[in-house]
Amino acid sequence: MATVKLLDDAEAEAIPAVKAVFDDIRAVRKSDFVNNFWRGLANDPALLKRTWEGLKAVMMAEGPLDPLVREMIYIAVSTANGCTYCIHSHTAAAKAKGMTDAQHADLLAVIGLAGQTNHLVTSMQIPVDPEFEVGHRR
Amino acid sequence: MATVKLLDDAEAEAIPAVKAVFDDIRAVRKSDFVNNFWRGLANDPALLKRTWEGLKAVMMAEGPLDPLVREMIYIAVSTANGCTYCIHSHTAAAKAKGMTDAQHADLLAVIGLAGQTNHLVTSMQIPVDPEFEVGHRR
Amino acid sequence: MATVKLLDDAEAEAIPAVKAVFDDIRAVRKSDFVNNFWRGLANDPALLKRTWEGLKAVMMAEGPLDPLVREMIYIAVSTANGCTYCIHSHTAAAKAKGMTDAQHADLLAVIGLAGQTNHLVTSMQIPVDPEFEVGHRR
Amino acid sequence: MATVKLLDDAEAEAIPAVKAVFDDIRAVRKSDFVNNFWRGLANDPALLKRTWEGLKAVMMAEGPLDPLVREMIYIAVSTANGCTYCIHSHTAAAKAKGMTDAQHADLLAVIGLAGQTNHLVTSMQIPVDPEFEVGHRR
Amino acid sequence: MATVKLLDDAEAEAIPAVKAVFDDIRAVRKSDFVNNFWRGLANDPALLKRTWEGLKAVMMAEGPLDPLVREMIYIAVSTANGCTYCIHSHTAAAKAKGMTDAQHADLLAVIGLAGQTNHLVTSMQIPVDPEFEVGHRR
Amino acid sequence: MATVKLLDDAEAEAIPAVKAVFDDIRAVRKSDFVNNFWRGLANDPALLKRTWEGLKAVMMAEGPLDPLVREMIYIAVSTANGCTYCIHSHTAAAKAKGMTDAQHADLLAVIGLAGQTNHLVTSMQIPVDPEFEVGHRR
Repeated sequence: MATVKLLDDAEAEAIPAVKAVFDDIRAVRKSDFVNNFWRGLANDPALLKRTWEGLKAVMMAEGPLDPLVREMIYIAVSTANGCTYCIHSHTAAAKAKGMTDAQHADLLAVIGLAGQTNHLVTSMQIPVDPEFEVGHRR
Repeated sequence: MATVKLLDDAEAEAIPAVKAVFDDIRAVRKSDFVNNFWRGLANDPALLKRTWEGLKAVMMAEGPLDPLVREMIYIAVSTANGCTYCIHSHTAAAKAKGMTDAQHADLLAVIGLAGQTNHLVTSMQIPVDPEFEVGHRR
Repeated sequence: MATVKLLDDAEAEAIPAVKAVFDDIRAVRKSDFVNNFWRGLANDPALLKRTWEGLKAVMMAEGPLDPLVREMIYIAVSTANGCTYCIHSHTAAAKAKGMTDAQHADLLAVIGLAGQTNHLVTSMQIPVDPEFEVGHRR
Repeated sequence: MATVKLLDDAEAEAIPAVKAVFDDIRAVRKSDFVNNFWRGLANDPALLKRTWEGLKAVMMAEGPLDPLVREMIYIAVSTANGCTYCIHSHTAAAKAKGMTDAQHADLLAVIGLAGQTNHLVTSMQIPVDPEFEVGHRR
Repeated sequence: MATVKLLDDAEAEAIPAVKAVFDDIRAVRKSDFVNNFWRGLANDPALLKRTWEGLKAVMMAEGPLDPLVREMIYIAVSTANGCTYCIHSHTAAAKAKGMTDAQHADLLAVIGLAGQTNHLVTSMQIPVDPEFEVGHRR
Repeated sequence: MATVKLLDDAEAEAIPAVKAVFDDIRAVRKSDFVNNFWRGLANDPALLKRTWEGLKAVMMAEGPLDPLVREMIYIAVSTANGCTYCIHSHTAAAKAKGMTDAQHADLLAVIGLAGQTNHLVTSMQIPVDPEFEVGHRR
């Protein structure tokens, strides 16, 4: 259950600003499937549009990181934030972009290790070594 | 300030189990520098050894993900967990492994986007689409 | 499933200290409905009473913030903490206090933006501008 | 210390896409002060522009929530995420928008209460009452 | 720097409701030292009193858990929440209550392990085994 | 639903490195039950082995903290991290190790209080008292 209404296709079609974004999602992804996240955001057409444009600019643009690496970074953040939906949707996206089981296992190992050392560091309140601070000090 | 003592070189030398790990850290990294995290863990030589062995197994082993990608995943987790020390040490490590400013900017953009959509999804309590659940259902 | 027993009305009636709080919840809210949170806390009558008294003092007292604003702040914290139950119960409470769909959408947009900028700031480890520190320095 | 360079005015002036955003920040805020967050984002002019446009659209637009309420929601999210910089900058912003000491105290009380009940709920794993799910079930 | 004023002794003395709590803190702890947390809360005498009464009821009452165990649980929560001040103050409190270096090391090892497995579980989205759900199902 | 396959007994038996760990889990716990966490980790036999060895070293070794206290610390971390599975599995483990309802209630009260004060401290950005810093300053 969501705390907002998830717009179905008929409801989305009836709002031009929503229809335009849904059409673009389908065109860009070459798929008729529009997942629930966008159907929830559709309650606020301006937020829907901004979020979709932001996602396209970050995840789909040409850039120094390849799309699969971006998906793995997304999964890492979503794990630490405990976002169930995000983990599911971006793990599916990563697999669709070719993530192998071995890469997934490697990703999990890094996430687990970071979780462990993050907690150890924080509990010991380790001060940042001056060696890490060279450069952009202000 | 840390909540534990950070062992200096003389103190570390005096405990054979600590000395052995510090020697390995220096040999593997080809550097005399041992950062504060290990100096804090050195209060518990068994925990020090396990953590260092775990880190070597995950971050330094041959595997499907390259070392720089692993560092970026580490930064992503550490950011969501708010671990200042970890962000500094692994950003330094990523740069040492060749992370360019453009890659860093791309990483930041993905982390920021994931932070935004994680919060939107959680606040709307979006249910997982059945399409994402195909496969490993139990 | 909860990790504690959720006391039903008969069980709650049988413990005078629990009955007293449940009676007060019903009287204050002018409703017979006692939600699961209180039924779980009822395993510890002293914790139940302290928590209910705290909630009344914060959420229901006359004060500078109106009750709906307080509910929206509650939703914001609960989202960042990933507390599903809390998001559901306080979104329902906010709607009962008159939160419109437009206000809900505005709330979501702020929560999403804060999530994004929180992550960007943390990953960049931006130092606090001295301009923000004027005043209560100690 | 930041993990990225914080561009000073001369460096910002030299990049037209950054200069344009900084000029807009100064014009919109009617102040010459550009805080460190934007100076860090300026390393990626496209991310800088998107983030500033998003902030204007959410925090400064006419809408159902007043600007001070939005700042308080921002502080609530930033607190739960442990973002020191964000707490400082948005508490300063809230005060600039008229937040009184009494409103600040009220905000803190709600944030503290939410933190407490979020933890209690999560530790007890309280199931969502069906009464909270009426409406948008899918 | 705090976002609120930290009341010094003269300021605290001038507000009877604050003075009463500060006097009780000193009497209960048998020490003249009042730490900054209470000096910040003193801006809201009612919140100060409620928080101090809650802390006495939880941390200082006779009960099934001994005071040192409670301090270690506190440190565990504070670590996962990334609360620097809380980690420092409660590690100091735990040491004052007799926490040995060996107990501290054991605590850290458990916190680190939990951080690791929490992240692994969440990233794999492991479903709860029915065996763990026997009992309080509702 | 998990994002990885959960290996059943036949699948686990077919991989010697997995079989060896599952055999050890059953032998150490004197139970045929292998919970889902290990079945998910079994996709990566090396990670499975490292995680199980780490858990044995921390949770089952003789040491200054008793096993029940360690489970309660685990629950505390898992609550703050919002790890549903971990809360369920370790609450079950704590009960199996003799945690009484009164101890559970005491644990919950401490977790809730820590959640509250963590949020209050963070929102007020209380600076660490010098009195807490005596000792291990570096």
